[in-house]
This record gives sequence, C-alpha cells and structure tokens, in this order.
Amino acid sequence: MKAFTTLMTPAQARARFAEALAVRPLGTEWVALLQASGRVLAEEIRADADLPSYDRSTVDGYAVRSADTADASKGAPVPLRVAGEVLMGQQAGLEVRAGDAVRIPTGGAIPEGADAVVMQEQAVRKDRTVYIERRVDSGENIVRRGEDLRAGELVLRPGRRLRPQDIGLLAGLNHAEVEVYLRPKVAVIVTGDELVAPGREPTGAQIHDMNTYTLTGLLERSGALPVPYGIVGDSLQLVLERAKAAHRQADAVILAGGSSVGERDVVTDAIAALGEPGIVVHGIAIRPGKPTILAVASGKPVFGLPGNVVSAMIIYDQFVRPVIEALAGLSEERHLGAPVRARLAKRLVARDREDHVRVALVARGGTLWATPVPGGSAIMTSMVLADGILVVPIDSALEEGAEVEVQLLG
Amino acid sequence: MKAFTTLMTPAQARARFAEALAVRPLGTEWVALLQASGRVLAEEIRADADLPSYDRSTVDGYAVRSADTADASKGAPVPLRVAGEVLMGQQAGLEVRAGDAVRIPTGGAIPEGADAVVMQEQAVRKDRTVYIERRVDSGENIVRRGEDLRAGELVLRPGRRLRPQDIGLLAGLNHAEVEVYLRPKVAVIVTGDELVAPGREPTGAQIHDMNTYTLTGLLERSGALPVPYGIVGDSLQLVLERAKAAHRQADAVILAGGSSVGERDVVTDAIAALGEPGIVVHGIAIRPGKPTILAVASGKPVFGLPGNVVSAMIIYDQFVRPVIEALAGLSEERHLGAPVRARLAKRLVARDREDHVRVALVARGGTLWATPVPGGSAIMTSMVLADGILVVPIDSALEEGAEVEVQLLG
Repeated sequence: MKAFTTLMTPAQARARFAEALAVRPLGTEWVALLQASGRVLAEEIRADADLPSYDRSTVDGYAVRSADTADASKGAPVPLRVAGEVLMGQQAGLEVRAGDAVRIPTGGAIPEGADAVVMQEQAVRKDRTVYIERRVDSGENIVRRGEDLRAGELVLRPGRRLRPQDIGLLAGLNHAEVEVYLRPKVAVIVTGDELVAPGREPTGAQIHDMNTYTLTGLLERSGALPVPYGIVGDSLQLVLERAKAAHRQADAVILAGGSSVGERDVVTDAIAALGEPGIVVHGIAIRPGKPTILAVASGKPVFGLPGNVVSAMIIYDQFVRPVIEALAGLSEERHLGAPVRARLAKRLVARDREDHVRVALVARGGTLWATPVPGGSAIMTSMVLADGILVVPIDSALEEGAEVEVQLLG
Repeated sequence: MKAFTTLMTPAQARARFAEALAVRPLGTEWVALLQASGRVLAEEIRADADLPSYDRSTVDGYAVRSADTADASKGAPVPLRVAGEVLMGQQAGLEVRAGDAVRIPTGGAIPEGADAVVMQEQAVRKDRTVYIERRVDSGENIVRRGEDLRAGELVLRPGRRLRPQDIGLLAGLNHAEVEVYLRPKVAVIVTGDELVAPGREPTGAQIHDMNTYTLTGLLERSGALPVPYGIVGDSLQLVLERAKAAHRQADAVILAGGSSVGERDVVTDAIAALGEPGIVVHGIAIRPGKPTILAVASGKPVFGLPGNVVSAMIIYDQFVRPVIEALAGLSEERHLGAPVRARLAKRLVARDREDHVRVALVARGGTLWATPVPGGSAIMTSMVLADGILVVPIDSALEEGAEVEVQLLG
C-alpha cells in the first residue's frame, strides 16, 4: 500500500501542469448569428462602415436649421414652413432652407440643410406651419454618422464569450455569421464497483453515480461539449480500454473516482498507461480533493478526480475549468460579480492543506454573513445548500467576524 | 400628433400590469437528467431513502473498534489482526471483533462491530497484522447512513433553476428523469421600414436589425424559447397580421420598434387590436425606454419595446424579464453576486425620469470605479462597452465619489 508522501501546493501543481502542456484553442467554425449566443468569438471584429451610416434623428419631431430657432420660446413661438416629411428607411431627398422645417420620425435620415431636430412636444403644428416653442442647438437630437462606430474601428476581440448585446452589434455590422472557436469535446468516465446509474436499483452496498451528471453540467458551463462515457468497474483492463477510446475521440478526458493511493487503484495505472508524458501531478495540498491527478497524454489533458462529488466539483473549478476554458478559446472573461464580500460567522483554520469551505450566505442587519455548511466532501447536500466557496490558505486561520471573499457557485 | 401627457413611474407601471395579469407557469414536462441543467424544477424533491444508504468509510484504511486504539501512538503502535477486506459495492459480510481490523477502501461499507476507520497513513501493515499508530474516536472517518439526507427529507423545491450540483443530487437520489416547467415560447417581431436583416445590403437610409438578435439572446437567458418572427414594415395591416399569428402560437409577444407616439405608429394600434383588455401601460418615466407599452391580450402578455436596441435591453430587463421568468416557473432565483458596489466617477442627475445609466467598471488603487459610458440609447457600443447598469432615481442626484450599486450585465 502506497501513501502520499509529499503533496504539491495548488500553485506548484498549476505551474507543473502548465510546463507539461501549453493549452491552445482547437480550431474554429462559422455559426449563424442566432446560434452564436454564449459561443467564444474567434475573429477580430471591426466596423467595415460607419455605424450609423447616416445622420439620424433621435426623436419624433421637425428637422430645422438651429439658427432659425434662436429666439424661440413658449411665449414667442417661431413659425416655420413645413416643407415635407422624411419617411423611415429613405434618404430624405429634401433640403431644409432658412425658415423651413421637415417632419421627421425617430431614426429618420436628417435632410440636407438641417442641423438639429425639435421634439414634437416642443412644436405646435397648424396646417403647413409649425410653431417652434424652444430653441435648439446645432446637433441637438441628432446621432451623427459614425457616432456609434467609425469604419475600421476595432469592436470585439477574439476570446470573448458573446453576450446578447455583442450579437446585436454583430447584426448591426451586417454579420449574418460569425467565426467562433470549436467547443472542446470532454469525455467523462466514472469508475467504481459501487456505482450504478440513476434509474437502476442498487444491490449490496451500491450508490448512484452523481459525478457524470454534475461534471456534465459544469462542462457545459465552461463552453465544452461533455461526452459521458458511463460507469466502469474497478478493473484495470476495463478502465484502460474505456480511457483509450475516450482519449482517441475527445479533446480531454476526466476520470472520476479511484484515484486514491490504494491497492486497488486502477485509475492511476490506467492514466499512466495512456501516453507520454503521463502523470505530472499526483496529490495536491487542498481540502477537499487531495488525491487529484493531473496528466498529459500525447498532447491531451487527462484529469483524475476524486470520487466524492464535492471534491470533484472543487477540483474541477480549481484545476480543470481553466484548462477547458483555454481549449475553448476563452481569454477575455471578466468575473466582476464574484467573489462577493461577506463576514465570517465562525472561525476557520487550515493546517497542511488549502481548505475550500462551502458556505451559505445570509443577510442579517445589512451584512452578508458566510456560514460554513456542515458535512464533509462525501456530503452532496453541502454543495446544494452552499452559495459559494471560501478559501482558507495553508497554515492560516480566519477569525469569526473577519471580512472574507466568497466565490459564488452560480 | 399625440404626445405623452402623463408618464407612470416604473413602480406604478409594474403594479398596473400585475393587476391586469396574474402570470403563472405554463405546465410541466419530464426530461432526462442529462438534459435538465438550467431547467426550472417543477416537482418537490424528497429523499425516498437515506443517503447514503449505509455507513461508509471516508478514507482508505482499516475499520476497527475505536476502543482497541485507545492507547495507540506512533511510539507504541497497537497491533490488530487483519480479519479480511471490504470490497467496493459489496456489503461487508464480516464482523470486526475485539482485536480485529478489516481493510476498507474510501466509500466502502463499514463492517459490523466496527465504529471507526484508521487512515492507512496511520497504520503499518505486516502480513496479517496491522500496527495502529494513532487513536481514533468512535465515528471517526465514517459517514453515517442518512447523514447526507434522511428518508422523507425535503431537498429541492419547485421554482429552482437546476445547477450542476442539484442534478448530481437528483442522480444520487435515483431520479433518472425530472419534472420541469415548460419553457415559454416568446415571439419577437421587429417593425420598421428602415430595417434589413444582417446579410442583406441596405438601400437608402436603412440599417440592420439588431433587436431580433439581442432579444433572442436575452430570452434564452431567462429560460424562454425565443421564436423570431422577422422584420415587418410600418403597415398596420402587416404588423397586425404578424402579431395575430405570433399571439396565437406563442405564450407571449414582444414587438420592438415604432411604439413612439407619432402619426405613423402602427405598433400601438396593432397591440390595441390583439385582444382584451389591451394596452394597460403606455409611457413610463424611465430613461431610456419612455415609449414602452405593456399590454395583455386574451390572457397573454404583449410588450411594445422601443426600437433603439439599448432602450429595448433596459426595458426587457426591467419589465419583460420578470414576466418571462414567472411564466417559466422561476421563483427561487437568488442574485447574490449582483449588484456590485463601486464608486461613481462622475456626478449624475436624473430629473423627471428614472435614469438607467450604462457604466464601465475599472479597478484603480483597490477601488472599483463606475464610469458612465458615453452615448445615448441609439448607441449600441455603449451597451457592449458597459459592464453594468446604475439607476439614478427620479428627481435625484448621485455625487462624484459616492458609493453606488451597479447591476451587472453578465
């Protein structure tokens, strides 16, 4: 029976893995704009024309020469001759001369000669005359050609996860399709003689597989295409067979369960046999999740996650997610909302491992309190009841009442 | 030409709409667990058996009677007879008597007679004897049957958007399928003679439709199934035809564009003609987004959104999203991460309307500063460059340097 002798710190483990594999996006594909929401942009987007492409009115009203309105007021309205009307979607084809006004809708093209628009609420129409009740300055109620974007201007950079407003802007710039990074295919294999799929009755001391479902959901969130490879029993031959197939077909492989150092630990041997350079990290000073494996086989990342689903979630977030996001091309993600600040409801101490504590957040008297959720890494409800994760560094304590940062589980 | 005479405050508009329509979820469907991520739970989930269903070891080691280890230490290890081994997934079928130890893997079923597990790191094995180097207390390194959940215990309530850990727990409780609320089908119609779809060349003073793409993305985020109904020109007959088809087929209808009060405002007339009670709110004291219509036609919500895409996004978030989320059955959403606190980089004043200001967030010297993004509601880049929205209440000012809350755009 082997035991973990020295554990790497989380920072050491990350550095070691980064040396072993430079993770790059896998390639790109073109998708229709309506399918692009949430995808990662792979091209640089520049405006190829001014946006808007003509001067537009921002209000319903009358296009005028602002000089004509210099003396206008409610008490002494200035009469202007209504010389015509701008129709939506058409170039005005009209000229506004001194003493003229032209009826214009919101978004209408400003006619030649006009340099401002009077809102209809500040104008009184009588037949072919409109009485202007307020002075407008040059440029008032007009969006200038190119005011949103100038032709050639850089708008969006590769590596950005496309939000609804980004998609809208792409539409405005006349992109019917957009180039995005391929989603990495990530295989999920769960191992353990004790596991059965939900829907099947357990026999003996069996339990239902949770990791396939949790990891699949997390992978979707990271922009990956999860590929569940099912449950494999604790046989080196079977695990290796399944892992080899997954490694051939997918861009990355996750094995969950059985990575503790023990006599029957077939996952470690299977990962080691997948390809060069093999296991680069085995055992990390983190709680939960110590028996984690980070490996590289023939240029593809392979992860051995603990079987306890809480540990697997923490390790996913700390070590797998960043790699999957890099494969997915994501480089511009900003996490402004998380972490949130809260006060700690109970003293916490970490000794030889960085402790990732599940906490519930409760607002009391205007303060957000972080209360540790009871239950170890085998207790799934601790993750369901938790709002976020609080990290206690190795060999340190956080005092009751201390201000802490909590990473939300989302 | 009509003009808005009195505007309702946002709160009045919400109250008036709530009186006109009590929004309820549409119905439910069963989906496989792997398809359930992000869906809204429609059933109450209780554990129908204890989880776990047997006492389990949380470590690799030896199941023992804790009393036998009372005097164990590294200097004076206690020898115990190795009476057998627990295999994963099987009931132990062994009894641990005084002086016995049984080899057990993480997750293994605790054999009869044992009340604690010694970690393998604290035990030295020599043939049929194991030397225990540390005292364990009763219950140590064991998860008790029912410690995660007791049979009958309530776990998840209807109205919750299912997260990866919730799906994992459902799997652990042997649910292969789960009952979720139907996603509301929401039609999006954009109106305006000036609009063309991306991919088509504009003629005259035409611009590319952005609202279809932005609103579709926002609806997906709210848990709806967006149904784009394309662009319709400014003709009452055409808009009404399209709106009637959408109203028949969808659970809610959004029309964007042309809801200003003007001579050619066909959207208002079309919405009014859709069904009883018709328009309940027209014009809200909010900036941007004043010319908003909230309507109910034969029990279905109908929204008239401004054509400017920035205004449409703000109004979606303020007035449409809550209705769509209620149709989708969502009731338990917590938004702990947003708003974030920041300091205002520039004084802001709102007069007769609640002002929704787009701000960029920049960290300087440990402080997050909120800087208003230039550009009115016709400027789409203002939404793309913004990180969030800051609300300035009617008739109020926020001073430079003031601490403010910013709702993230996400």
